Amino acid sequence: MVKALEWQEQHPIFAISPTDWTNGAYYTGVVRAHQATKNQIFLAALKTMGYNNQWETLKRYHHADDIAIVYPYLYIDGTRKDLVNLEPSTTFIDKHLFEPNPWRQGPKDSLTHILWWWCDALFMAPPVLASYSKYKNDSSFLDEMHKYYMETYNLLYDQEEHLFARDLRFVWKGDKNDKKAENGRKIFWSRGNGWVLGGLALVLDDMPKDYKHRAFYENLFKEMAFKLKSIQSEDGLWRTSLLDPDSYTHGETSGSGFFTFALAWGVNNKLLSKQEFMPTIQKAWEALEDCQQENGMVGWVQNIGDAPTGAGAKSWQNYGTGAFLLAGSEVMKLE
Amino acid sequence: MVKALEWQEQHPIFAISPTDWTNGAYYTGVVRAHQATKNQIFLAALKTMGYNNQWETLKRYHHADDIAIVYPYLYIDGTRKDLVNLEPSTTFIDKHLFEPNPWRQGPKDSLTHILWWWCDALFMAPPVLASYSKYKNDSSFLDEMHKYYMETYNLLYDQEEHLFARDLRFVWKGDKNDKKAENGRKIFWSRGNGWVLGGLALVLDDMPKDYKHRAFYENLFKEMAFKLKSIQSEDGLWRTSLLDPDSYTHGETSGSGFFTFALAWGVNNKLLSKQEFMPTIQKAWEALEDCQQENGMVGWVQNIGDAPTGAGAKSWQNYGTGAFLLAGSEVMKLE
Amino acid sequence: MVKALEWQEQHPIFAISPTDWTNGAYYTGVVRAHQATKNQIFLAALKTMGYNNQWETLKRYHHADDIAIVYPYLYIDGTRKDLVNLEPSTTFIDKHLFEPNPWRQGPKDSLTHILWWWCDALFMAPPVLASYSKYKNDSSFLDEMHKYYMETYNLLYDQEEHLFARDLRFVWKGDKNDKKAENGRKIFWSRGNGWVLGGLALVLDDMPKDYKHRAFYENLFKEMAFKLKSIQSEDGLWRTSLLDPDSYTHGETSGSGFFTFALAWGVNNKLLSKQEFMPTIQKAWEALEDCQQENGMVGWVQNIGDAPTGAGAKSWQNYGTGAFLLAGSEVMKLE
Repeated sequence: MVKALEWQEQHPIFAISPTDWTNGAYYTGVVRAHQATKNQIFLAALKTMGYNNQWETLKRYHHADDIAIVYPYLYIDGTRKDLVNLEPSTTFIDKHLFEPNPWRQGPKDSLTHILWWWCDALFMAPPVLASYSKYKNDSSFLDEMHKYYMETYNLLYDQEEHLFARDLRFVWKGDKNDKKAENGRKIFWSRGNGWVLGGLALVLDDMPKDYKHRAFYENLFKEMAFKLKSIQSEDGLWRTSLLDPDSYTHGETSGSGFFTFALAWGVNNKLLSKQEFMPTIQKAWEALEDCQQENGMVGWVQNIGDAPTGAGAKSWQNYGTGAFLLAGSEVMKLE
Repeated sequence: MVKALEWQEQHPIFAISPTDWTNGAYYTGVVRAHQATKNQIFLAALKTMGYNNQWETLKRYHHADDIAIVYPYLYIDGTRKDLVNLEPSTTFIDKHLFEPNPWRQGPKDSLTHILWWWCDALFMAPPVLASYSKYKNDSSFLDEMHKYYMETYNLLYDQEEHLFARDLRFVWKGDKNDKKAENGRKIFWSRGNGWVLGGLALVLDDMPKDYKHRAFYENLFKEMAFKLKSIQSEDGLWRTSLLDPDSYTHGETSGSGFFTFALAWGVNNKLLSKQEFMPTIQKAWEALEDCQQENGMVGWVQNIGDAPTGAGAKSWQNYGTGAFLLAGSEVMKLE
Repeated sequence: MVKALEWQEQHPIFAISPTDWTNGAYYTGVVRAHQATKNQIFLAALKTMGYNNQWETLKRYHHADDIAIVYPYLYIDGTRKDLVNLEPSTTFIDKHLFEPNPWRQGPKDSLTHILWWWCDALFMAPPVLASYSKYKNDSSFLDEMHKYYMETYNLLYDQEEHLFARDLRFVWKGDKNDKKAENGRKIFWSRGNGWVLGGLALVLDDMPKDYKHRAFYENLFKEMAFKLKSIQSEDGLWRTSLLDPDSYTHGETSGSGFFTFALAWGVNNKLLSKQEFMPTIQKAWEALEDCQQENGMVGWVQNIGDAPTGAGAKSWQNYGTGAFLLAGSEVMKLE
């Protein structure tokens, strides 16, 4: 994990800014690695990142991608007082949840009234809101989160397959426009579902045990966990197209990393049976370790995208490293 | 090439600012490495650099050194819309070319009326202007470039030796003040001519095939190429004092790197005969590879200067790494 | 030393800001390493640091911690004109020395009237003031420094033990509140005294040979040097609790590094006898080298604190690397 961090810190990358979702996801992994190991190498990287970003967010207040970086900011704030300026984060959260915006007034038959209209958003925003709710000791932020979460759930969750469609393009309507995998099945994206399940673990981690809607999240977590256990590939990694493993025959690190994190977190937190899930987790972690090169680089990460595509031994992204760190931070607690 | 980049990124250096000519030259090499390899490691470094520099230039608008960083900015802009702020670059180009300035009104017998009065400038400014002309699809920027280029050419190009004097100090007037090398010959600086020939390749690369003055640049390119082929040292590298190889008996990487880049580009673009130039290029590239240490550092680079001096196995500069990347980006296409 | 720098540059860390005292101490080591070796790798790191910090200081003008970063700024300024903006440094120095502040008006029986009330401060501020005095060629800054130095000396220096108490908490008053080490002796902190002795070497280095109070500093330097020689541990390193070596039985790098630097500087500058001190210095440097890992990391550094505590092979901090570089920069001159 230290080598993964060191390599990634030496190879900074972003899509549009160092505060974008790619770094939000990466540094969420760094947060969990620090929590689990207490190794200051992770905290030093977090503080340097936050300081260099001046604790800012991007300014697309309606866009879940731009709130992801707040998760590490909230964590760093907990490590030292008077260090973090949480004002930009607070502003973002308030505007994201409560500000009038065209998508709220959209016609019911369009997407414009869905805040989190793609499943990746369930990693970007809900964990931040759960963490912020805990920080403010105010469950109204959880309530607001739940309202939007249900909209996405109702829009994209497949009750039969227990997986999320990436977005409406992949939800079958029973006509000739339905997108099908080569084997004729529905297309469920590995990383897309990794965002959801990983995000669920983070949300549950910060959600009070007695929160009124907790059962919904635990149940969803378990449904997805059992499904993913059942479709793990022989080599331990999930394929980018979950139900069509022959379309891309190699494993992919970002989705598999998020799954491994979530399953191990589930065992560590007694939501999943250790006996039942340990073989899955062990096989997955060993396979993830094989995706890391000698120099620390985590490979086999699918590039930025919105649907299953391929990856290679040398394809890397910061969020892939983040998924690897998340997985390691929970797997180490199992031993 | 990846190791050269990684080492250089881990050892940032500049003369007066991260946007100065030393980084302009380095990141021009990174641009060409990315174009040639498509390896995102190069693009990630470019974006991080531009973001950290806030797409700014230094503000000496009459000084060619300060425009060099615009070459990578223009390239990055082509990789993603809405990422790069080209306003500072545009402002610089407009002021550099068109703003009233003391050097324009100088007396004819002084240097004050020559914009690019030293040969290094022919790398710093013309490639940016050719690239900008292509970006704007407006050949008037090429016309303006040509006007200033001719002034420098007339001032510093030696029609017999087919090399550029670094500046007027090294142009012989036939009196006792003429600077002579130890062997009595004229002093032509390797890196100085590297700037010119490397810059010519970059200019020709962006110049339309039917541009009215293209023949002048192709001819100049070929004249210099044949000259340099004829004075390559046995070990593949050029000496810092091109016509006095005994003054500094070891090769030097920055000049040799620019030459190797230009000659390979010439072969790849059919301006030079592959059969005639391959032995020169191969010998040079193998020697350049020997200048790179195990950890990626490119050594044997002459320090910042304005005339031939020595170098050592451990002397490095970012522009030396840039020359190495430029050379590699064209040599790899030959194979 | 190069490997120590490279590792540290790749692992940036700070307590509250990149301009805080931890980086002030680290980059003071980088300054001395550059002075001693002339290797540009050190100067490149210094310039990059200063540029990224925009030559700023933190703004607690009464706090010695926040002036430490000025030492490297002053050095960098000497390497190239028109590069460093010394205005924030000058402002800090003026306010630190001359601005009305509550601590000046405090009642005589409290600490509020002591500017440098803890011994670490004697590294943070006096070397900067001696360097600034030399830069301005104005001994009034030395006079002012001396005034405050004497206050700290009178408050914390133990005339019998020839060591500094970290702060008033550790000065015995002869009652039951006196803090005692486990072995019953007074508690003197290794790094705390390292700050003082290392700071003295830096101050003396910039102080004119004929400065009126020089004898005081030379005498103090020698008293402490002989004391430390007498309590060095068998393995070459000093223990974090200097007079109670059994409380933490391993050596500690930051204190030992500052001591080694100061003793070697004393020999190099003829304040200490080479014959008498060489065995001490050699043993210490060899032990410090053993604290450095293969990858360059300097371990066995006690964490941020204000009293003796433990350290481990993998505990590192930037100021520990700074102490290592300081030591190396003088030891290399002995050979």
